[in-house]
Amino acid sequence: MAERPEGIRVGVLHGPNLNLLGRREPERYGSEELDSINRRLAARGTELGVEVDFFQSNIEGELVDWIQRTGSDFGGLLVNAAGYTHTSVAIRDALKAIGTPFVEVHLTNIYARESFRHHSYLSDIAVALVAGFGGDSYLLALEGLVAYLRRE
Amino acid sequence: MAERPEGIRVGVLHGPNLNLLGRREPERYGSEELDSINRRLAARGTELGVEVDFFQSNIEGELVDWIQRTGSDFGGLLVNAAGYTHTSVAIRDALKAIGTPFVEVHLTNIYARESFRHHSYLSDIAVALVAGFGGDSYLLALEGLVAYLRRE
Amino acid sequence: MAERPEGIRVGVLHGPNLNLLGRREPERYGSEELDSINRRLAARGTELGVEVDFFQSNIEGELVDWIQRTGSDFGGLLVNAAGYTHTSVAIRDALKAIGTPFVEVHLTNIYARESFRHHSYLSDIAVALVAGFGGDSYLLALEGLVAYLRRE
Amino acid sequence: MAERPEGIRVGVLHGPNLNLLGRREPERYGSEELDSINRRLAARGTELGVEVDFFQSNIEGELVDWIQRTGSDFGGLLVNAAGYTHTSVAIRDALKAIGTPFVEVHLTNIYARESFRHHSYLSDIAVALVAGFGGDSYLLALEGLVAYLRRE
Amino acid sequence: MAERPEGIRVGVLHGPNLNLLGRREPERYGSEELDSINRRLAARGTELGVEVDFFQSNIEGELVDWIQRTGSDFGGLLVNAAGYTHTSVAIRDALKAIGTPFVEVHLTNIYARESFRHHSYLSDIAVALVAGFGGDSYLLALEGLVAYLRRE
Amino acid sequence: MAERPEGIRVGVLHGPNLNLLGRREPERYGSEELDSINRRLAARGTELGVEVDFFQSNIEGELVDWIQRTGSDFGGLLVNAAGYTHTSVAIRDALKAIGTPFVEVHLTNIYARESFRHHSYLSDIAVALVAGFGGDSYLLALEGLVAYLRRE
Amino acid sequence: MAERPEGIRVGVLHGPNLNLLGRREPERYGSEELDSINRRLAARGTELGVEVDFFQSNIEGELVDWIQRTGSDFGGLLVNAAGYTHTSVAIRDALKAIGTPFVEVHLTNIYARESFRHHSYLSDIAVALVAGFGGDSYLLALEGLVAYLRRE
Amino acid sequence: MAERPEGIRVGVLHGPNLNLLGRREPERYGSEELDSINRRLAARGTELGVEVDFFQSNIEGELVDWIQRTGSDFGGLLVNAAGYTHTSVAIRDALKAIGTPFVEVHLTNIYARESFRHHSYLSDIAVALVAGFGGDSYLLALEGLVAYLRRE
Amino acid sequence: MAERPEGIRVGVLHGPNLNLLGRREPERYGSEELDSINRRLAARGTELGVEVDFFQSNIEGELVDWIQRTGSDFGGLLVNAAGYTHTSVAIRDALKAIGTPFVEVHLTNIYARESFRHHSYLSDIAVALVAGFGGDSYLLALEGLVAYLRRE
Amino acid sequence: MAERPEGIRVGVLHGPNLNLLGRREPERYGSEELDSINRRLAARGTELGVEVDFFQSNIEGELVDWIQRTGSDFGGLLVNAAGYTHTSVAIRDALKAIGTPFVEVHLTNIYARESFRHHSYLSDIAVALVAGFGGDSYLLALEGLVAYLRRE
Amino acid sequence: MAERPEGIRVGVLHGPNLNLLGRREPERYGSEELDSINRRLAARGTELGVEVDFFQSNIEGELVDWIQRTGSDFGGLLVNAAGYTHTSVAIRDALKAIGTPFVEVHLTNIYARESFRHHSYLSDIAVALVAGFGGDSYLLALEGLVAYLRRE
Amino acid sequence: MAERPEGIRVGVLHGPNLNLLGRREPERYGSEELDSINRRLAARGTELGVEVDFFQSNIEGELVDWIQRTGSDFGGLLVNAAGYTHTSVAIRDALKAIGTPFVEVHLTNIYARESFRHHSYLSDIAVALVAGFGGDSYLLALEGLVAYLRRE
Repeated sequence: MAERPEGIRVGVLHGPNLNLLGRREPERYGSEELDSINRRLAARGTELGVEVDFFQSNIEGELVDWIQRTGSDFGGLLVNAAGYTHTSVAIRDALKAIGTPFVEVHLTNIYARESFRHHSYLSDIAVALVAGFGGDSYLLALEGLVAYLRRE
Repeated sequence: MAERPEGIRVGVLHGPNLNLLGRREPERYGSEELDSINRRLAARGTELGVEVDFFQSNIEGELVDWIQRTGSDFGGLLVNAAGYTHTSVAIRDALKAIGTPFVEVHLTNIYARESFRHHSYLSDIAVALVAGFGGDSYLLALEGLVAYLRRE
Repeated sequence: MAERPEGIRVGVLHGPNLNLLGRREPERYGSEELDSINRRLAARGTELGVEVDFFQSNIEGELVDWIQRTGSDFGGLLVNAAGYTHTSVAIRDALKAIGTPFVEVHLTNIYARESFRHHSYLSDIAVALVAGFGGDSYLLALEGLVAYLRRE
Repeated sequence: MAERPEGIRVGVLHGPNLNLLGRREPERYGSEELDSINRRLAARGTELGVEVDFFQSNIEGELVDWIQRTGSDFGGLLVNAAGYTHTSVAIRDALKAIGTPFVEVHLTNIYARESFRHHSYLSDIAVALVAGFGGDSYLLALEGLVAYLRRE
Repeated sequence: MAERPEGIRVGVLHGPNLNLLGRREPERYGSEELDSINRRLAARGTELGVEVDFFQSNIEGELVDWIQRTGSDFGGLLVNAAGYTHTSVAIRDALKAIGTPFVEVHLTNIYARESFRHHSYLSDIAVALVAGFGGDSYLLALEGLVAYLRRE
Repeated sequence: MAERPEGIRVGVLHGPNLNLLGRREPERYGSEELDSINRRLAARGTELGVEVDFFQSNIEGELVDWIQRTGSDFGGLLVNAAGYTHTSVAIRDALKAIGTPFVEVHLTNIYARESFRHHSYLSDIAVALVAGFGGDSYLLALEGLVAYLRRE
Repeated sequence: MAERPEGIRVGVLHGPNLNLLGRREPERYGSEELDSINRRLAARGTELGVEVDFFQSNIEGELVDWIQRTGSDFGGLLVNAAGYTHTSVAIRDALKAIGTPFVEVHLTNIYARESFRHHSYLSDIAVALVAGFGGDSYLLALEGLVAYLRRE
Repeated sequence: MAERPEGIRVGVLHGPNLNLLGRREPERYGSEELDSINRRLAARGTELGVEVDFFQSNIEGELVDWIQRTGSDFGGLLVNAAGYTHTSVAIRDALKAIGTPFVEVHLTNIYARESFRHHSYLSDIAVALVAGFGGDSYLLALEGLVAYLRRE
Repeated sequence: MAERPEGIRVGVLHGPNLNLLGRREPERYGSEELDSINRRLAARGTELGVEVDFFQSNIEGELVDWIQRTGSDFGGLLVNAAGYTHTSVAIRDALKAIGTPFVEVHLTNIYARESFRHHSYLSDIAVALVAGFGGDSYLLALEGLVAYLRRE
Repeated sequence: MAERPEGIRVGVLHGPNLNLLGRREPERYGSEELDSINRRLAARGTELGVEVDFFQSNIEGELVDWIQRTGSDFGGLLVNAAGYTHTSVAIRDALKAIGTPFVEVHLTNIYARESFRHHSYLSDIAVALVAGFGGDSYLLALEGLVAYLRRE
Repeated sequence: MAERPEGIRVGVLHGPNLNLLGRREPERYGSEELDSINRRLAARGTELGVEVDFFQSNIEGELVDWIQRTGSDFGGLLVNAAGYTHTSVAIRDALKAIGTPFVEVHLTNIYARESFRHHSYLSDIAVALVAGFGGDSYLLALEGLVAYLRRE
Repeated sequence: MAERPEGIRVGVLHGPNLNLLGRREPERYGSEELDSINRRLAARGTELGVEVDFFQSNIEGELVDWIQRTGSDFGGLLVNAAGYTHTSVAIRDALKAIGTPFVEVHLTNIYARESFRHHSYLSDIAVALVAGFGGDSYLLALEGLVAYLRRE
């Protein structure tokens, strides 16, 4: 997993309330803030030879806009749609429209939480999913995604 | 269906991801772009003697705003709420609040797709529905709506 | 939608109780009788350059017979199976057996009525569906179907 | 299974759309026509020393009539109610009324198809069932039924 | 309940398999034949001063035809749709179309039998229902219906 | 149904809120009071040669007490458990314990009302049921019950 | 399990219809009467060094009253709520309010009976449950409860 | 909300186990006893110019009796049916029979508790509901009810 | 409830379509406009010695933004999420993230309306709820909330 | 329950993970080890005059083997299938095949635990069940079973 | 069906409890033992010109092992997984992994038995299924399978 | 993630059919064999400074045995229970009994496959889960687990 390919870019999409990370229910979500996760992702990306970009919004339609506008620029995406994971057909449709492969990411193990979090509109069209490692979920998903993209 | 009434205006509401039309999964949605459909609707409106206006947004609340602000200016609406069809009580409430009659429109036959697309928050308060003719769905719905408005 | 192709024929299937049209619950189904709808369909067919044939029966198996015997003679069908829409696997099988494309038609918006009318055995194998415009539902479906047949 | 008993007669009931066999979706139902199956059944009946009679109709009530009128003349029945398998309480009641033992027959493996074909109104009152061997289903069912009748 | 009104006529509809009465599972349905019930109904009608007519068919569509053709000639109906009770939207629609008040009748207590007999497409639009008294169910229903018609 | 047997007694059980009859929602339950129904039942009983006794209570346990204490004194019961029909396993158990045959009675057609009234804890252990004739429901049930008791 | 503690008292609650024991469906519930069970419980209590008190009522609210008034006087309870097991939130609330530990008791194996007896409002707040040993269920539950109370 | 109308009287109905208030699970229901709530309601009633009466029972049928006997004497009711909220069709029927407007009251937020407490037989026929403020729920409901009664 | 505490501030959140109040379906929602409710809340706040702030938006994500940015500045919130009540996990997550206690408010009795309005994503994390008093719902909720905040 | 019958033998079946008893989640299952329970059962068996044998395995098929091979040698069984209680049709079939009466035993009250433990494949074919008394559950079940066997 | 192909071998897999055949509930499964069925299969195989091998185990994992180790040596399989039919994803996966065509076999008509036997993890990947002929089910399945293999 | 802690050992559990890896449906599971994955895990473990052990079995009870016997020797586990993931309460209980933290691993995205693979008995007690990266799933899970163990 170490050689550097030319030009793979990975987009990272953070959904609603993730901007509160580190302050929102730290006993559940950990004390690491979103900026720290992003910095770790960028550094790991450098090691893996890929460029990593980020976007966060609390507004469902802005997430759809971003996927439409920039989604095709990336080789792959990491998507943590947070609360919209369970309710948004629009985000699902946008991801399906652009066709870029993506990994579904969750900080927590959503299957160990309330039952309305057990259904995801994204899982069945994702390449893979990682959940429950806190901020590390993103890093592991990045590694897995890059390996996947180089294999295809 | 040919005489020209004074002043009937029809509003057309396009929901999330429809701005991608022609590029998004063309084997499913066809290769015609949204602008082309709008031009065909305007032309057909002229033949039928009605004015046709358009609005598209990926943001649920902007669609609600538009319905509230301008919905009462129209004699009737064509509504293709796309992904929000299946999840938005807010759009339903806005349409019910203004009371303007509307026809539900879909490009594809939603009953031949995933089961979460079989339920619509709009069908039971719509005047009628047309689905499965691709871009022609809008044109047929426009004809049906104008006939309905002149009959009432 | 105006040029005249050679030889497209369209079959129209009317299910149980539709022979009562105009007399049965007119506040729901309108006062137009079935003959009038058929005449309008024939006239519109002439404009579109297609021949239109009709059949009505209250007996499920006679509808199946008609589909088998004559269904393949048509380029496409308009099917309003009325009460059998919600209960007949046999009609579904017959339509699937002959493979002729068809549009599902309803006079009323079935999604605004009793819940047992929300499920149709035909929707997922139909090309498209039109519902809620009264007798105009058939005319719009005819236009849509002819355009579809010329496009394929 | 080879000795010839005196006078066992077996009735074979074919439900709706089976008259299309060989032409309807041959990739699913095979290319053998109903007449061929009937001829094979008659021949196999001769070998087994039983007489075999046949009836096909697309009309639910005619199937009920036939069961009532002639059902008691047979030692046993082979019943392939096709689409009515899943919807007809009337056929069930008729079979129960005459009390003749019968084997439920299906050309295809109905449990590998749409879920609405998984429920049968006949299975729980049948002696046995055979499904999935195409036309051979009937022949195997005939053998099994004759062995059953001689054992009783 | 004894005075004779001018011209009340009552229609009695017997559904599939009821022509077998007296021979079909007598331990469940009793040994009285349908003719005997009809004679008792006619005699009781004479006492009550009403004329009683009868119709039986095993074919769903013929029952629909009869309801359409003659249903409006009667002041009220007794309807025992037998097996079609649980599956026929078409009979329901026909009864609703003509609007004649009717009483739902069953020989047996359908709620003490298989669960698929617990749902009826007729109960919620019937004036009343009587079940479980064998042939007497019809006679009691006739009395109740006549009293109802004179009160309205 | 006219000869007088020695000593058949019939008990009539009226459940909660039936003491309000004639004043409670008369557009639904009619204007006849419970005393009037009881008087009519007694008179009809005299004609049929049976004695009829009555009991009403709003308290579930008192109804259970009465069934236990006096239920075995009767040849049969008419039971209108009203609101407890849908919630009381205790009344069901009491009726089953004494084993006296009973007819379930309802003033209204409970299947045309709220869905929580469609399930009854009594129907499957009743001999028969009558519903929807208003006060006449009791009288018809009495006739049917007496005929049943004389037949057994 | 033999030493005698000072002052443990156990209350036994019998729900509706249990006063009929020995006469009600003896093939299901056995021929032993409630008094006999109570005498056996008292004798077994003496052996175990505990005092045992009893209460029976057919009235849900009286059972609630008794639990409220005397429930806290006991170290533990044996509760056989009979028919109210499956329908009474009020008894559940009363038992939870006083907080006295209790064992749920049933004469029969309720899981081998009608499905509406499979759910209990008491099981999840009980210490333990015993079912299916007839009158012995109470005696075994008493032993288990006393051992439990001495262990805590 | 301050002027004094002539003669408005409000009835307050307390269901099962509420007589234990202050002693039953105080960490959930608070330490205020029912008498104290009643005194506060009476005092607040005096300020608002209305008379307030009270009734508590653990017996379902007694609550029904009280509603029947005195319910029509009041302009409006506050109803906290406690455990019977979720199981009593009889109380629902009694409230509907008298037609007096009522507000549903709960001490706790029933939607944050066990799922069987999420359904109420009263909510859909209540004017309004207040839940979760402990004893204050009654006081706020009283204010809201009086304002409602003066507005109608 | 009259002494003035220092510095309690209450935030009021109005969801989609509430800006239409007074014009949207007045027979359901009343003729009072949102501004009037806000003025009444401010005045009542002054009497209770608390400051009241307001926010309305039709856009789900803006409501989330507002909760995140300003939610912690308040001692408590009144939340009427309107149509988003039934569909928004994102608003639920935001309210849970900031941890500020809130009361759920509805103008109408949502349990007397369509079934999809019976489920709320907010009820189980709310302190309390008030529904059905029209604009007064907010005022009563304000009183209850302030009492709650002073008690904690 | 004290006289000694000749030759009653009781088999005790312990399912998966029960060999860990005393070390696995002792706060739930108690600190007593399986050997200790077996010794207590043997001793209690001696007092009751019966021989008691034991078997434990973590492998579903070995439990089935044991039931087949030795199950008929016993007068009755105590069965604690642990995790297989909720998933094994094979153990159910084996128990049903040999026909030996058995009592279902659980250390804990399974109805107070996860919902997937509320369903048992054994309860409806067991003679009786005991749950929630820890190791005493076995001892009480042994007493009940022996009394049952002597009574039959 | 009579010519002898070179080298077709058929494997027969018998699941748990089938070794008890002839002794286990003979009124349901018949009195023929497994050895007898195997001998009949071998003889019929000789007639058909195929070799037949057998395996039986009560242990799920051993069945998986056998499928893996020897499954590919066969042209086709007869699989009667008995109780594991309804619970074993592992056997399904093993069969799918080796890809050998197989026929699902049952002695009894599983659709006429308990509902948990109506679902099979094997049916949708089987070529065909035979159920309800007792031991003959295997023989018929063998014939059908051989015909299938020669046709492919 | 690079420093070497003393003594962390990780156990890897492979469930049924994983021994076939590389040969079983390679288009789904890839062509890498299990030995190769194990070698990669051992190598990566060395880099991370942890020891890695392996176990594979097709027999549910042997997996339970291994978890019981050796599970506590490890700091953490990687568990791919394959087909048993969806059916085994016994494996769940064993993992819960030993309390060792574990990561659930799957080669494929189980949420994009048959619906019966969407439920796992392990997810809600796992620390985290990784699915869909083929053999890389194990490697990423190993990294995440080691980071987790060092953080705790």
